[in-house]
Amino acid sequence: MRKKIKVGIIGAGRIGVIHATNIVKNFSDIEVKSIADIYADKIRDWAIGLGIKHVYDDYRSILADSEIDAVIICSPTNTHSQITIEAAQAGKHIFCEKPIDYDVDRIHAALNAVAQAGIKFQVGFNRRFDHNFKKVRELIQSGAIGDVQILKVTSRDPAPPPIEYVKVSGGMFLDMTIHDFDMVRYLTGSEVVEVYANAGVLVNPSIGEAGDVDTALISLKFKNGAIGMIDNCRQAVYGYDQRVEVLGTKGSIAVSNDTPTTVVVSTNDGVLSDKPKFFFLERYMESFAAEMAEFFGSIVNDTDTKVSGIDGLKPVLIGLAAKKSYEDGKPVKLEE
Amino acid sequence: MRKKIKVGIIGAGRIGVIHATNIVKNFSDIEVKSIADIYADKIRDWAIGLGIKHVYDDYRSILADSEIDAVIICSPTNTHSQITIEAAQAGKHIFCEKPIDYDVDRIHAALNAVAQAGIKFQVGFNRRFDHNFKKVRELIQSGAIGDVQILKVTSRDPAPPPIEYVKVSGGMFLDMTIHDFDMVRYLTGSEVVEVYANAGVLVNPSIGEAGDVDTALISLKFKNGAIGMIDNCRQAVYGYDQRVEVLGTKGSIAVSNDTPTTVVVSTNDGVLSDKPKFFFLERYMESFAAEMAEFFGSIVNDTDTKVSGIDGLKPVLIGLAAKKSYEDGKPVKLEE
Amino acid sequence: MRKKIKVGIIGAGRIGVIHATNIVKNFSDIEVKSIADIYADKIRDWAIGLGIKHVYDDYRSILADSEIDAVIICSPTNTHSQITIEAAQAGKHIFCEKPIDYDVDRIHAALNAVAQAGIKFQVGFNRRFDHNFKKVRELIQSGAIGDVQILKVTSRDPAPPPIEYVKVSGGMFLDMTIHDFDMVRYLTGSEVVEVYANAGVLVNPSIGEAGDVDTALISLKFKNGAIGMIDNCRQAVYGYDQRVEVLGTKGSIAVSNDTPTTVVVSTNDGVLSDKPKFFFLERYMESFAAEMAEFFGSIVNDTDTKVSGIDGLKPVLIGLAAKKSYEDGKPVKLEE
Amino acid sequence: MRKKIKVGIIGAGRIGVIHATNIVKNFSDIEVKSIADIYADKIRDWAIGLGIKHVYDDYRSILADSEIDAVIICSPTNTHSQITIEAAQAGKHIFCEKPIDYDVDRIHAALNAVAQAGIKFQVGFNRRFDHNFKKVRELIQSGAIGDVQILKVTSRDPAPPPIEYVKVSGGMFLDMTIHDFDMVRYLTGSEVVEVYANAGVLVNPSIGEAGDVDTALISLKFKNGAIGMIDNCRQAVYGYDQRVEVLGTKGSIAVSNDTPTTVVVSTNDGVLSDKPKFFFLERYMESFAAEMAEFFGSIVNDTDTKVSGIDGLKPVLIGLAAKKSYEDGKPVKLEE
Repeated sequence: MRKKIKVGIIGAGRIGVIHATNIVKNFSDIEVKSIADIYADKIRDWAIGLGIKHVYDDYRSILADSEIDAVIICSPTNTHSQITIEAAQAGKHIFCEKPIDYDVDRIHAALNAVAQAGIKFQVGFNRRFDHNFKKVRELIQSGAIGDVQILKVTSRDPAPPPIEYVKVSGGMFLDMTIHDFDMVRYLTGSEVVEVYANAGVLVNPSIGEAGDVDTALISLKFKNGAIGMIDNCRQAVYGYDQRVEVLGTKGSIAVSNDTPTTVVVSTNDGVLSDKPKFFFLERYMESFAAEMAEFFGSIVNDTDTKVSGIDGLKPVLIGLAAKKSYEDGKPVKLEE
Repeated sequence: MRKKIKVGIIGAGRIGVIHATNIVKNFSDIEVKSIADIYADKIRDWAIGLGIKHVYDDYRSILADSEIDAVIICSPTNTHSQITIEAAQAGKHIFCEKPIDYDVDRIHAALNAVAQAGIKFQVGFNRRFDHNFKKVRELIQSGAIGDVQILKVTSRDPAPPPIEYVKVSGGMFLDMTIHDFDMVRYLTGSEVVEVYANAGVLVNPSIGEAGDVDTALISLKFKNGAIGMIDNCRQAVYGYDQRVEVLGTKGSIAVSNDTPTTVVVSTNDGVLSDKPKFFFLERYMESFAAEMAEFFGSIVNDTDTKVSGIDGLKPVLIGLAAKKSYEDGKPVKLEE
Repeated sequence: MRKKIKVGIIGAGRIGVIHATNIVKNFSDIEVKSIADIYADKIRDWAIGLGIKHVYDDYRSILADSEIDAVIICSPTNTHSQITIEAAQAGKHIFCEKPIDYDVDRIHAALNAVAQAGIKFQVGFNRRFDHNFKKVRELIQSGAIGDVQILKVTSRDPAPPPIEYVKVSGGMFLDMTIHDFDMVRYLTGSEVVEVYANAGVLVNPSIGEAGDVDTALISLKFKNGAIGMIDNCRQAVYGYDQRVEVLGTKGSIAVSNDTPTTVVVSTNDGVLSDKPKFFFLERYMESFAAEMAEFFGSIVNDTDTKVSGIDGLKPVLIGLAAKKSYEDGKPVKLEE
Repeated sequence: MRKKIKVGIIGAGRIGVIHATNIVKNFSDIEVKSIADIYADKIRDWAIGLGIKHVYDDYRSILADSEIDAVIICSPTNTHSQITIEAAQAGKHIFCEKPIDYDVDRIHAALNAVAQAGIKFQVGFNRRFDHNFKKVRELIQSGAIGDVQILKVTSRDPAPPPIEYVKVSGGMFLDMTIHDFDMVRYLTGSEVVEVYANAGVLVNPSIGEAGDVDTALISLKFKNGAIGMIDNCRQAVYGYDQRVEVLGTKGSIAVSNDTPTTVVVSTNDGVLSDKPKFFFLERYMESFAAEMAEFFGSIVNDTDTKVSGIDGLKPVLIGLAAKKSYEDGKPVKLEE
């Protein structure tokens, strides 16, 4: 019987809890040995109940444990690159939540450390593992619709985050659209070469006062000649709207929203069906387990991860370009 | 240039008006020369405005006109068989609204007269010419789903007819289900050999007091071994529900309702789409023109009509069997 | 901290494995202490790997363990009633897979034992816990569509079972339709008072030679006046077809199939979307966990289970009546 | 009885034939008295058969007829403004096919002539009268989705026009997108203030060699703050794709394609449904009749037409801006 992979989780906020629970429930050959959080006391009971042996307040305790094979970095964004560097130097495989950082130099530093250590590194773009989007990618790659001409991503949240979050998040293009920037690269298999952000404050003036936008249509040009568009809004009152459309020379592909049920009620008032699944926890829960399966598989089989360091870097570059495009009011080219 | 076919319309009630208008608008090589109605005075202005030359109060004036090639019988049901006999004897081609009669002997008498006269005879089962159902039949006949195993017809009216109508209509199985009995023969291409009617009064007790039912599930056995079910209700508050499902050995076919628009509105309350088209005028208007095209085509090209006298007889036989089944509480076999 | 409920699983065939895995993964406060199967050796490694402490070849070893609070009976159908009686006498709460038995007397004996022991008893009609059907029931009970008039259940398997299974299963009405007989009671909240089974051998003649049917439309009358229909086929080549439609005085409800993805591909050949989820494992997996949650909840909170012994008995009675109706070719009334 | 409006049709190409036939069939109180086409001989038989009395080769014969109340201008685009001026001076009401002209000065000249003559003038933006889009506008205006934030129009042809047409059409933005530029004004009720055209040659290199593009995503800013996007392609192999999506503060609206039937076929290969209606004749036929009803109604009731001269001018201005944006690679502001 193969030795169990031993994992340490760094950061026990919402996404850290999701990953910990997922691994314990669904991966019988992975052991979550330890977890670290600056509020260790608050999570201790939960962690012990889940069967996690060690609860630290300093992630360095995990890195110092020679039994630990891999770490899952779920701490605040501004700590990702530093922890990545230290974990790489400690020889741990790394799963790092997105984004690696908002600072391009720090991302490069982290990726250099990863390269030197020769460890596995995967970024948490979980939507690549969603059943719908994965099938779109497979269909495109199989040639089912020929060459991609137009790609459109709709990605709207059910409600805006607190203003306090908006002020520190890096802005909508970096905290929200970053998933979509990854998605367009994943689906087209091509790099973005130009961005034009048409955006505004149409949900809540406070978001504008905080220096951000809340609604955007982002026009994209891809290296392979295709063109694309991302549609974002901080608030879609009918729910979390996550769709994709692709037009190719031989056909088109469309993904609509998942819904809680398929129930349709017809009355004199009309024909009523379900709103989309509420938010990312409902919509993407399975993808969180799937990305972990991929990560552990790459360790066990010594294969490349499906979301590399470059895949972590590029969406940040596109996001920064989108921000500049919005500020300057004109398209911005991305350098090679 | 071919001589125009000259047509006389007998009966200017709702369906007579539909046929007259359809022909005038859509058939430039057909002339509606005359129309007869016992309330001739009430329709004269309308008929003249439509370009119809003669308005009679006695249909025999039409039959006596040697220029008339064909008649469209839209008078009350209890006059259909008699007028058919006289029109056949006068050598006119006949389009007769459904049903030919509720009395089987009188239907046979009418069909005998038709046979002896050698004229074209078509019954007004317009739904055979509906775009959706026609395609289902074509798919079945093409072998797209293999051999038919199960056929289900849903046919519900938006609201019940007046009680006065219920009292004289012959009952739901004969005034409403008769269209569905035709549909199952048309779609399967097989005869019904047994009927079991599971029915009740679930819409309006007055309908029960008038001796009729308003809701039914009618179980069918076909000569080719397939089984079927017709679902009827006098009242579907969300609108006119006209659907079909077929299961075959190689697949299934389903037809859903036509709607006025494809508009979908998503709000916090849910996802709302259109109800079905309101009633038979909205839903089947094109089929009324299509059945006329078929009738005139069979005259011009001397071909068989697509809805023969037998096609007019059989649904009445099934309807009478359904009625008996409901009254006796057990299945009724149809004689060959 | 509340003491963990200790569970023993009896029978480690397909459904036993599903329940064991579900409980271990999803119920941190339930312990699967032991499992029994006549082929204990074949399941030992799997069971130990799952953390189950004891693997027996005789279920009586579980019943004899005073620490065991509840048993999950997943053994062959012909052992259900006997094990139920013994487990009840041993004071264990019981979750019993459907059907309790095919013999009505033996069902009564089992239910008597349950009543005398005063333990919780739940039957494995998992579809009651399906997200779609549960919502239909809630909507009906809330009055959203008024009084139920027509209920239609479509329930078709993707492929027929082996002929060997057909020979011993009790027939399609008892091995397959039994779920649908439960569903119609669950959805209408009313008892079936009459059954008429219109059925045939339209999939595979060998099924007929084995004395069974493979295709059926089962007509139902309910105590509250509603009428219903169940549509069954052993083979729907496009997949597992699990749908429901309800017509009420104020509207209708329809449930369509769940699909693996929402991807739609449009090409010159047409618009192609996903087939239904493959079979019951894919379609109903979540409901297996949900029914367990319900069972354990009823133990912890000392409430009635959601699927009682009567709920286990009634569908067998309806199934036997359906069988008789098919054999006699006429409707069969159910006695009160 | 009101005097019949007498109409002359100028130009008997495809759209001229559509209008002539529509009016003759559907407007019993309108008389198509005359038609003019430079190939008068080729259309004479057809026109006479339709009941049109005069067939001219010079449109001035129509303008000189004092009995003519209104003209329908369906001649080549480069003659629209000149004929409009002459018809206005002759006191005829004018229905003019889109676009009025590609030259802004000539449009102004035509509109000035219209204003001086005080006659009714309607531009042939028929899609405003489409059942789907009309309902979207009504819903937006009713406040059903609050304030519009994002508007997306998908408008793709089934196949590109001949290269000879591409060379003289004024380019995709003016011959095809012009309908969409009208649609966004119609739906939002707001003016476009900035355009950015992201476009390419992704269908056929010959189109690029002819100096045009065939695929575009056009980003829009509206005066009311909303943002929008038009998605165009000269070729969607699955058919004519005509959809709209609107996000507002209280909900969203989506319109999907009309299809020839609602038939869905499920086999082992998947679930197959109809492609969109083939092209604009199938998709928009009813709207051609509806726009005429509007035009004649405005004459009879002396009301403003629903598509004014300004409505004819603005889309041309937006189209020219889109063209410039594509050529310069940056957003272009529209002057007030």
